[in-house]
Amino acid sequence: MASKYFNGHSDHYNGLTIDSNEESCTLEVFASRLTASLQQWIENKKRTIWFRVHLPQSEWIPLLVKEGFKFHHAKQEYVMLYRWLVTDEECNIPHYAHTNLGVGGFVYNVETEEILLVKEKYTNHARIWKLPGGYVEPGENLADAVKREVLEETGVQTTFKCILGFRHVHGYSFGCSDIYMVAYLSPVNCNIKKCEREISECRWMKINDYLEHSEVSENNKKIAKTILEFFKHKMGIVVNQEIHFATNKPIFIYSISKVNA
Amino acid sequence: MASKYFNGHSDHYNGLTIDSNEESCTLEVFASRLTASLQQWIENKKRTIWFRVHLPQSEWIPLLVKEGFKFHHAKQEYVMLYRWLVTDEECNIPHYAHTNLGVGGFVYNVETEEILLVKEKYTNHARIWKLPGGYVEPGENLADAVKREVLEETGVQTTFKCILGFRHVHGYSFGCSDIYMVAYLSPVNCNIKKCEREISECRWMKINDYLEHSEVSENNKKIAKTILEFFKHKMGIVVNQEIHFATNKPIFIYSISKVNA
Repeated sequence: MASKYFNGHSDHYNGLTIDSNEESCTLEVFASRLTASLQQWIENKKRTIWFRVHLPQSEWIPLLVKEGFKFHHAKQEYVMLYRWLVTDEECNIPHYAHTNLGVGGFVYNVETEEILLVKEKYTNHARIWKLPGGYVEPGENLADAVKREVLEETGVQTTFKCILGFRHVHGYSFGCSDIYMVAYLSPVNCNIKKCEREISECRWMKINDYLEHSEVSENNKKIAKTILEFFKHKMGIVVNQEIHFATNKPIFIYSISKVNA
Repeated sequence: MASKYFNGHSDHYNGLTIDSNEESCTLEVFASRLTASLQQWIENKKRTIWFRVHLPQSEWIPLLVKEGFKFHHAKQEYVMLYRWLVTDEECNIPHYAHTNLGVGGFVYNVETEEILLVKEKYTNHARIWKLPGGYVEPGENLADAVKREVLEETGVQTTFKCILGFRHVHGYSFGCSDIYMVAYLSPVNCNIKKCEREISECRWMKINDYLEHSEVSENNKKIAKTILEFFKHKMGIVVNQEIHFATNKPIFIYSISKVNA
């Protein structure tokens, strides 16, 4: 006989998460189980109920919405819905991530005083020279991301030195904010082999020409000017790896330090 | 007579977004319109079809899933589904944001050499002294976020000086990564009035005592040690506001500069 209630997984905040893959059932069983469970959860003073609904159980979603559930976030294979059961306290569930993280490579050849630049094939704006770079992948570190993007786009292998600064803007794709970090990289090889799919042009350019070039955005010139301050003070944001005392996971600590430029 | 096809909004990538509020219809009409539209979109070589399904039209979701749509992201009131129609090219749709952004306040009284610390009421770990702070709200700047969090938690008003560094970790809440920035703040007043809801204790502590305290995590001691380097070099990550050349939106540029500590 089917269980009358969902089991779910308890959390530290007196909440419960039900995963649709783990407690898969027919739509009919789902409906009666949801009614019975909700009554029990309210009686037991549960605070938040979460449903992680995977694609194969997507028929559950309209029934959850009818019972007052709202969306929290989604990944390709599931959507997470929640209902805050507390009636005498304002909902304190944190927002899901709303910041995109990107990183651009300031690949500088100290001997020739040249930087590595690209023009993108697909862009909203006029085709302008810009630093190679892109979005950080889930779980990826800044240094790995920028070296990967520079290599993919230009064929140039690099060494990561430090972060030089970042840009923070709001209201971009899907209403998210955007942090774009600029990393200082040393080229290991200088031969360009551009990505045919994403990049229309790629070249080395004298840093002083870049600052005056008509095909460089004013914003990027401003960022470049702040970067050039680095060559006076040689202080960059360097990274050190530590281990989290409780979770044993790696932590990457970024702090300001003298950089061997 | 109901239109046979969805209208949607075109984008720069030969894609189309249909908003369920704008083109609301019965489930029966939805089913036939989806079939007809999909055939048309495939013939017209559309690349990506997006459906923004709001809570009142959640019955659309199982039908979209049956037609091969997957989830992209969700906000409280809607879930975004997509289908990549191109058959001879790998899907290049970017991930939704996967980085949480938090900020802690290093509120330092230069005269007494004390910093402002809190113990949280609700935490997974043993109750430890930590910097006041919290998550950045959607669309909020780092300086505003940290001043708000410090004021809410401790009652202390502050002036933002600079960012001192940050920590990057992976695999945290909902599988997201986490960037936690540490901001250097000057107290405007020193009288503590703690937040009864979130904070169990709040106090000023000599910075040297903090570095040795048994109720301070090893990670936070390491971060504090990198922060103390600041008082030798006085170089911080300062912010300047610019305007984006194309969108006219404000841009916040963070770069390394001498700080009047």
